[in-house]
Amino acid sequence: MFQTDGYRVLDRQECLRLLARAPVGRVVYTRQALPAVLPVNFRLDESACVLMCTSPASDLVRAVDGVVVAFEADEFDAATRSGWSVVVTGPASVVTDPAEHERLSRTGPGSWMPLRDGVFVRIESEMVTGRELRGAPGAR
Amino acid sequence: MFQTDGYRVLDRQECLRLLARAPVGRVVYTRQALPAVLPVNFRLDESACVLMCTSPASDLVRAVDGVVVAFEADEFDAATRSGWSVVVTGPASVVTDPAEHERLSRTGPGSWMPLRDGVFVRIESEMVTGRELRGAPGAR
Repeated sequence: MFQTDGYRVLDRQECLRLLARAPVGRVVYTRQALPAVLPVNFRLDESACVLMCTSPASDLVRAVDGVVVAFEADEFDAATRSGWSVVVTGPASVVTDPAEHERLSRTGPGSWMPLRDGVFVRIESEMVTGRELRGAPGAR
Repeated sequence: MFQTDGYRVLDRQECLRLLARAPVGRVVYTRQALPAVLPVNFRLDESACVLMCTSPASDLVRAVDGVVVAFEADEFDAATRSGWSVVVTGPASVVTDPAEHERLSRTGPGSWMPLRDGVFVRIESEMVTGRELRGAPGAR
């Protein structure tokens, strides 16, 4: 919440409010020792975890299960040079509990891609950071 | 360029055309052994490298100079569940050549934040991948 030169640091509650209205975010992880990033649609669950649905055969599932990942969402307006970004960092895990999987199949996020037998991946929001850029019309 | 279930793989030229029109992308790197991601405004240079301008004191500069990073841009429409994403992976380096720095100060990307004595970071587009999501109205 303190003010810096060009942006305002957001507190956890502000971050979660912004995340909740973003339809798409990006999972940031490591694949074959290289930095990797994949945009996905998602939903925040009631404990502020990031939930997404993907193919059980995807590279993503193999790379992130049990691993700390980052998840980013943002919204910027190039005309006013303003916007916000939020990053959640925490362990990702595939939902393996059948009852929980069944519950998410009814209530959780779907995938934007046609999927049969999708699996749910949850990212715990251990660390949540964000900032708001107010626009700097004088900057080139 | 081949067709998969829910998306179309883009070739390098298509990726670079889309990147060239995106005002904001995200640098994906590792900071203190954790995955990190930071949205930045950027420009593609004539050799298809990603160029950005940032503070010489930033965490980003310290973390990415001489390191392979990923850089992602995308555009999605939640209503039609369609859009595209492009990822560039390659080594990042701070521009240290005075003549090149001077040239970029005149012609390169500015920063959206007010900066004094910004430095330019270049990411070589060694690997460029992308995909287009055509919309899957049947998916939940």
